[in-house]
Amino acid sequence: MDRNQLTEEESSRRVNIMGLLLNCAVFLLVVIVCSGWQDDGNYDGRLSDSDPISLWPLPQKIQISAVAFKLSASSFQISHAKESSAGPGCNLLQNAFRRYFEYMFGSVKNEAKPRKKVFSSELTELQVWITSADPECDGYPSLKSDESYELSVDQPSAVLKASNVWGALRGLETFSQLVYEDDYGVNIINKTSIVDFPRFAHRGILLDTSRHYLPLRVILANLEAMAMNKYNVFHWHIVDDPSFPYFSRTFPELSQKGAFHPYTHVYTPADVKMVIEFARMRGIRVIPEFDTPGHTQSWGKGQKDLLTPCYSGSSPSGTFGPVNPILNTTYEFMGRFFKEVSTMFPDAYVHLGGDEVDFSCWKSNPDIQKFMEEHGFGHDYSKLESYYIQRLLDIVSSTNKGYMIWQEVFDNGVKLRLDTQIHVWKGSKDQYETEMARVTGAGFHALLSTPWYLNRISYGQDWHGIYTADPHSFNGTEEQKKLVIGGEACLWGEYVDATNLTPRLWPRASAVAERLWSDKDVKDIGNAYGRLAQHRCRMVQRGIPAEPLFVGYCRHEYKGL
Amino acid sequence: MDRNQLTEEESSRRVNIMGLLLNCAVFLLVVIVCSGWQDDGNYDGRLSDSDPISLWPLPQKIQISAVAFKLSASSFQISHAKESSAGPGCNLLQNAFRRYFEYMFGSVKNEAKPRKKVFSSELTELQVWITSADPECDGYPSLKSDESYELSVDQPSAVLKASNVWGALRGLETFSQLVYEDDYGVNIINKTSIVDFPRFAHRGILLDTSRHYLPLRVILANLEAMAMNKYNVFHWHIVDDPSFPYFSRTFPELSQKGAFHPYTHVYTPADVKMVIEFARMRGIRVIPEFDTPGHTQSWGKGQKDLLTPCYSGSSPSGTFGPVNPILNTTYEFMGRFFKEVSTMFPDAYVHLGGDEVDFSCWKSNPDIQKFMEEHGFGHDYSKLESYYIQRLLDIVSSTNKGYMIWQEVFDNGVKLRLDTQIHVWKGSKDQYETEMARVTGAGFHALLSTPWYLNRISYGQDWHGIYTADPHSFNGTEEQKKLVIGGEACLWGEYVDATNLTPRLWPRASAVAERLWSDKDVKDIGNAYGRLAQHRCRMVQRGIPAEPLFVGYCRHEYKGL
Repeated sequence: MDRNQLTEEESSRRVNIMGLLLNCAVFLLVVIVCSGWQDDGNYDGRLSDSDPISLWPLPQKIQISAVAFKLSASSFQISHAKESSAGPGCNLLQNAFRRYFEYMFGSVKNEAKPRKKVFSSELTELQVWITSADPECDGYPSLKSDESYELSVDQPSAVLKASNVWGALRGLETFSQLVYEDDYGVNIINKTSIVDFPRFAHRGILLDTSRHYLPLRVILANLEAMAMNKYNVFHWHIVDDPSFPYFSRTFPELSQKGAFHPYTHVYTPADVKMVIEFARMRGIRVIPEFDTPGHTQSWGKGQKDLLTPCYSGSSPSGTFGPVNPILNTTYEFMGRFFKEVSTMFPDAYVHLGGDEVDFSCWKSNPDIQKFMEEHGFGHDYSKLESYYIQRLLDIVSSTNKGYMIWQEVFDNGVKLRLDTQIHVWKGSKDQYETEMARVTGAGFHALLSTPWYLNRISYGQDWHGIYTADPHSFNGTEEQKKLVIGGEACLWGEYVDATNLTPRLWPRASAVAERLWSDKDVKDIGNAYGRLAQHRCRMVQRGIPAEPLFVGYCRHEYKGL
Repeated sequence: MDRNQLTEEESSRRVNIMGLLLNCAVFLLVVIVCSGWQDDGNYDGRLSDSDPISLWPLPQKIQISAVAFKLSASSFQISHAKESSAGPGCNLLQNAFRRYFEYMFGSVKNEAKPRKKVFSSELTELQVWITSADPECDGYPSLKSDESYELSVDQPSAVLKASNVWGALRGLETFSQLVYEDDYGVNIINKTSIVDFPRFAHRGILLDTSRHYLPLRVILANLEAMAMNKYNVFHWHIVDDPSFPYFSRTFPELSQKGAFHPYTHVYTPADVKMVIEFARMRGIRVIPEFDTPGHTQSWGKGQKDLLTPCYSGSSPSGTFGPVNPILNTTYEFMGRFFKEVSTMFPDAYVHLGGDEVDFSCWKSNPDIQKFMEEHGFGHDYSKLESYYIQRLLDIVSSTNKGYMIWQEVFDNGVKLRLDTQIHVWKGSKDQYETEMARVTGAGFHALLSTPWYLNRISYGQDWHGIYTADPHSFNGTEEQKKLVIGGEACLWGEYVDATNLTPRLWPRASAVAERLWSDKDVKDIGNAYGRLAQHRCRMVQRGIPAEPLFVGYCRHEYKGL
């Protein structure tokens, strides 16, 4: 044990002093002294030790006054502004109102007898005002969704203004984070003005349900946590070598034979729909990944002739390699399969994988060798891989989906549509920066995951490195930087399942969330520590077993095991 | 992600083939073919892929036959043998019967109408036979407790023979591990003969409730898991620098001022008693650690003048160092405090800490300097530390307790009673082996923790290194080896609390458990892998969120979040 590190409290204190020295425009929040509205600076997270406000990720522009209002569970309401294009018929917002009301007041705090009198220092309403003609209540979030919002907390009522529901969801989360309990258990919110929008449009989490099956409740709980961190993409790495838990209506044998268990370890169409709807309600896109031609061992169990038979000398060895790229039946299968996928998953994008294709089996197979000769590929098996991917991309394009692919597909020179999203995951810092420059230099959209393989753990506060990595840290023009759509935190499944996934992911993934949402200059570790420690306690209080950053405690500890 | 590792299933398979090649005396368990009792070899864990038996830790001597019996929840009973010195009045055993019955049959499997007929292939009874005159039903386990047992599973009834309840508890765990479900959900147990005893008498887990407060249910759940792994010592590192959660009746200010919160983050006397009784029921000793003179910052908040005032130049700096060793009031306080501790905790030993004393504050203090001169200590502050420890040991000896101390106390040459247990925790492999040799060479009892700091984590299957470490791996005589009483897995609390402690500890601590219980030659990683993967699924089924070793699944996944 290293006993020389600072505790949560000590660290906050030191940071605050540094903050005061460094930045004289700092806002001091003094709840007791009502010094009125102050306009001379922005809140930047450096408050006093007892700072009850811990916004995460930090909004783009924020002013917090020392004026504070009380909130009462019995009188406070979240309502639709009369100018709003959305009303009580907007199921998505009604659900969000309930969710955030419960976060703020819990379920036990409703008083039996509502108070009649409204004190002047009380805030009784948050009006949600959707400004565009179509609030998108029944739509799905997309890469182009406008998530910006403006929040004004003042009397007679707070107003949350957003062009559509997606921004409103983000603003509701922020509003709920502004509410805190004083020493008497009274819910308090300060007079506040916020203008907020995400730095990157694609802010994702990858969960892997093939190496270990994740029960539905684990996926849903993590979608909840994602919403608390303003994530907007669930990258569902749903199948891979070890198991095929996706129940395909078109090819039910795939999960019947390829899942760990055909009933208990499978995602039925109803499960998938539930995940998608649960995510939609929180402004989260669900992008499924069906990784081919490698990582497909489990596919072979339920689909004859899909995988390449490997040879040992002149006869088949009985083992199988990647998808067999030389058979027409392969492309017929893929056509039907991805047609189903395209209707099952509403998002405009599907992730097609394409990483880590092992050529040894292809090399051993005489039919493949012959095919290589006929097509003039020589001994360059990456050309065969490209041939396969090219045909797959054509198939998926025909379903009107865009696609994401791992960087190898780009590296191998496969011809790609310009709207293709290249997912960078390999190498050291130098290497991924070079790759980001190459991808965007070629005009493609890029997203970064290399520094955010959160399955990799080490002892101590490893969120520091996670927090400081930046998708824009490469040499490139402004145009290139604009092609970076964001990034994803990946939690590969080798060592995680329902027993340990959630605390391993949170709050480490929160560090990525702030990098992808907040201004690029929000990067001070010490400042982040204090807010993140409180944010993790908030997640714990909301039922998410987010692990501690360091020594300390939460007022409300985790209630589970 | 490293995708080149074997999955759970693949790994088992490879191991089994290796096992067959290496050891022809291997037992093949074939449930369907009843080939009768076989005496030509010992089961050593290398069974077929579908081996449903996964004993952990592996018993010392075991013979398993292919003959199998069914068990029915409606007819099976655990009873006291008529020769047994214990009967239904033995609360500890009755509780254990209920616990293990539930583990084996769950609570939902009781049939409404008990079957009348007993089939010849059915086992209907486990008789527990306590042989010594005093079964110790109301006693506490101790370092000298006899935990050996003999188990014979055969008709007309299985018999578990032990000299007292402590061995019976270990045998009940083993019996429950022998029961498995066949494909039809029928509970099966094979004809089996086991003679078992622990290799080391002290097999402990250290939990730290100062760096983070652990709610009672987390401690209790981990005591449950300890019993599943035949651990017998809970080393409760109850207080330290960050917080003082132990509620002292004699000095209530200690937790009122030193705990993270005086009500919600405190262990009351009732809590402590509950932990001790819950542990006793499972044959687990509770050894509290009150670490002094360092690691005591939290003590200073509720006890004036206990800590040394540090100086900055010629005046006090306002900060405090270790316990002040030059004041009589210090020893008066310690006398009263440890008197309470000695009555609160029934175990014959208390851990007094003594590690990592920082001398800088002592050096700064003019009163300490004067005291050093007066006592002829020169500038050797380890002499001052020894002076303090010596007086503390005399105090604790007067309460009729034995003591454990961290290795520094021995290293600094403090005069110790020969029954003192030296806890080795520092350094590299070479260093801790040298230390084990030195400690035992000086005639003291030693226990090892260095390789088992389970708070330290790294990516991948780090249980390999944990599993292969051995308390006897040092150069020493047979006499020296006999002085090694065992070891402890330590989970220091910097980065763990209720959200993540249990999966981080299990099944990694299971690896230590087998090292400390089973024969020294049980050390094959591959063989261990298969059994441990199944053992962790068993823990999961029993409600413990033990994390996965690698890719794979459990038939019954964890039901929590």
